[in-house]
Amino acid sequence: MSISLPRVQSILEKLASISSEREELTRLAFSREDEEAHHYVIELCRQYDLDVRRDEIGNLFIRKAGIEDHLPAVAFGSHIDTVVNAGKFDGPLGSVAGLEILFRLCEQGVQTRYPLELIIFTCEESSRFNYATLGSKVMCGIADQESLSKLRDKQGKGLEEALAEIGLDFAKVNQAKRKAEEFKCFFELHIEQGPRLEKENKTIGVVTGIAAPIRSVVKINGQADHSGATAMHYRHDALLGGTELALAIERAAIEAGHSTVATVGNLTAKPGVMNVVPGYCELLVDIRGIHTQARESVFNALQQQIEQVAAKRGLSIELQLISKDQPILLPEQMVRQISRAAQDLGYRYEIMPSGAGHDAMHMATLCPTGMIFVPSKNGISHNPLEFTSWDDIEAGINVLQKVVLEQAEAAD
Amino acid sequence: MSISLPRVQSILEKLASISSEREELTRLAFSREDEEAHHYVIELCRQYDLDVRRDEIGNLFIRKAGIEDHLPAVAFGSHIDTVVNAGKFDGPLGSVAGLEILFRLCEQGVQTRYPLELIIFTCEESSRFNYATLGSKVMCGIADQESLSKLRDKQGKGLEEALAEIGLDFAKVNQAKRKAEEFKCFFELHIEQGPRLEKENKTIGVVTGIAAPIRSVVKINGQADHSGATAMHYRHDALLGGTELALAIERAAIEAGHSTVATVGNLTAKPGVMNVVPGYCELLVDIRGIHTQARESVFNALQQQIEQVAAKRGLSIELQLISKDQPILLPEQMVRQISRAAQDLGYRYEIMPSGAGHDAMHMATLCPTGMIFVPSKNGISHNPLEFTSWDDIEAGINVLQKVVLEQAEAAD
Repeated sequence: MSISLPRVQSILEKLASISSEREELTRLAFSREDEEAHHYVIELCRQYDLDVRRDEIGNLFIRKAGIEDHLPAVAFGSHIDTVVNAGKFDGPLGSVAGLEILFRLCEQGVQTRYPLELIIFTCEESSRFNYATLGSKVMCGIADQESLSKLRDKQGKGLEEALAEIGLDFAKVNQAKRKAEEFKCFFELHIEQGPRLEKENKTIGVVTGIAAPIRSVVKINGQADHSGATAMHYRHDALLGGTELALAIERAAIEAGHSTVATVGNLTAKPGVMNVVPGYCELLVDIRGIHTQARESVFNALQQQIEQVAAKRGLSIELQLISKDQPILLPEQMVRQISRAAQDLGYRYEIMPSGAGHDAMHMATLCPTGMIFVPSKNGISHNPLEFTSWDDIEAGINVLQKVVLEQAEAAD
Repeated sequence: MSISLPRVQSILEKLASISSEREELTRLAFSREDEEAHHYVIELCRQYDLDVRRDEIGNLFIRKAGIEDHLPAVAFGSHIDTVVNAGKFDGPLGSVAGLEILFRLCEQGVQTRYPLELIIFTCEESSRFNYATLGSKVMCGIADQESLSKLRDKQGKGLEEALAEIGLDFAKVNQAKRKAEEFKCFFELHIEQGPRLEKENKTIGVVTGIAAPIRSVVKINGQADHSGATAMHYRHDALLGGTELALAIERAAIEAGHSTVATVGNLTAKPGVMNVVPGYCELLVDIRGIHTQARESVFNALQQQIEQVAAKRGLSIELQLISKDQPILLPEQMVRQISRAAQDLGYRYEIMPSGAGHDAMHMATLCPTGMIFVPSKNGISHNPLEFTSWDDIEAGINVLQKVVLEQAEAAD
């Protein structure tokens, strides 16, 4: 069943035009513009025989009844809120793909055995509340009213007030929780946000799991000294200690394999002036992977290296763990199904982990979940330069359509 | 001829109490408090047969006539302006030592063959105008009115206005220039501002030369990428490039020998957040030494390493030279004279370069110049923790007195 690429393009372009800022795309969750985008989507669905419902946190469910409508739903979807100065594909792609699949079925008069449910998750980006995947966390019972009561945006506005502005009642948020038995499976189509598919010249990424970070801060105390008057062998240079740790972290990630990555996102030195040997240095360390042992090995290597560097340079080094989330492995049968679909449709595919977090990682706690990636030019996302070719977008939607219809047992 | 340590202590303590800030010592050049300190010194000299003169930039000359007063002067001195939140020895020590030597001679009725001249240089610290050794530069003809016309302090006040506030005329600044033939030699006693004497358990440092810095900025452009979604081998991490250069600079300085030092005083990464591979990194690099070839070898090593790191990591790296001052070698006969004096007086001494800049480096362009260091506890200076024991201070003054009297041919 072919899709209409022009319609996909036109909906994506329309969504890209709904922004709170001129000359850029910024559509933070629960904002007036986010609400406008939701109403635009609801309006589009009115033309078809689809059931539209919004839950208590603001997730949108667009349901097409199945022949056996009591069966659990075959679900798919993504989000439409964006970061500040965003690209137009991160989120909207998977959402619009879902709309296109539903619209096409309606137009063709096809009813599937299982009901279909497109989910447009609210507040996937952390840009509004410094809290990511809010909608799917509530829906999957991972976050509840109590845990969300302290969220504040940059203007100090709480979630309660933000919800009230779009007519939702924070007191009812827990009612948004859905049950595992309501879903047969879930698929999310998303841009890769990394360079692997482009570099490997592949069209489809089949996601094996969603990496989660171990985040830590390394605090290094040495001694600030006159940079001219202190001989090299008398120094306790905190910055140099930090540089050795940064390189050790890189080595450990490469050695760990299993697509484990580790990043020193920032290094700050104090006093940070030309003529003083830095007496203090701080590193922000993010270690990610889907293979918990490999990820752990990088953290352990960092701990060991800290001891060595501290001893060698006469530094006092503290490793402070900030967070340690569990990676999510996606079921093998979903990986196999998506791989086969890509192959049947003639697309080159890559089996790979997702380094970024997605709503799919929470859905994976409810039902068998699969994720489909399409290439990001130069690996760029969260940026107006975010780009995926229309050919790749069409390929991604075709794969999503195929696996959804297989799961829903379309009569064809 | 013994000195009066209690008098030295009392003058140093009095100077330490003249501060623009409560609870700390801050006496920026040309400030009301700096002027108060100058007047305090002038007042002390009134009690003796000394000629006091202030030049057009604010340097203070305290002269004791020689038996053959037409002969060039045996000069010595230091400064009394301070950094913000300073210690009480950096500058005042050498100035007060000079006062003590002159007062003692007056009290003992000793006249030297050569005239003696104590110079209290103005504005040695860069804290006021971001410009160091201003007084000695003008006096030695290294800076003139034109080159100083653009100086501004943190409040935007120019040097012209600052001079006017203490009754000096910026238009006459060039008249402060002195001639080489006016001086037989110059000595400066100063705290080391480094840990070497303390670590080597020596009392006197005999300075062989004054290191000068090559200062540069390294600007590294890589690519900012999602820290979760970008595999290690696809990265162009600017921060990691910077860390390799910082370590290479350290290695090169150690290999260069000749007491060459090199410091990365700051490393900044952008965007500098936990979840983005740094796309940009900047290093502040300060390479110092008195041996120009050794110093050059570190800079060359940095250039070579830049090429290697850029090629290996796919980075674009620019090395921007900020300044390159020439190190000053002090004459061997001055090093020998000071060493002998220390030995004759029974002090353990170390022959060593000065890593920090001093007024002596400009005086060295006018006449044979020598420098005497005394230990800095933990190498600390520019800080209230700056400390030199009274025993060491007495030793330093004794050595200064001995070499001054030798040069001045005291009848004894």
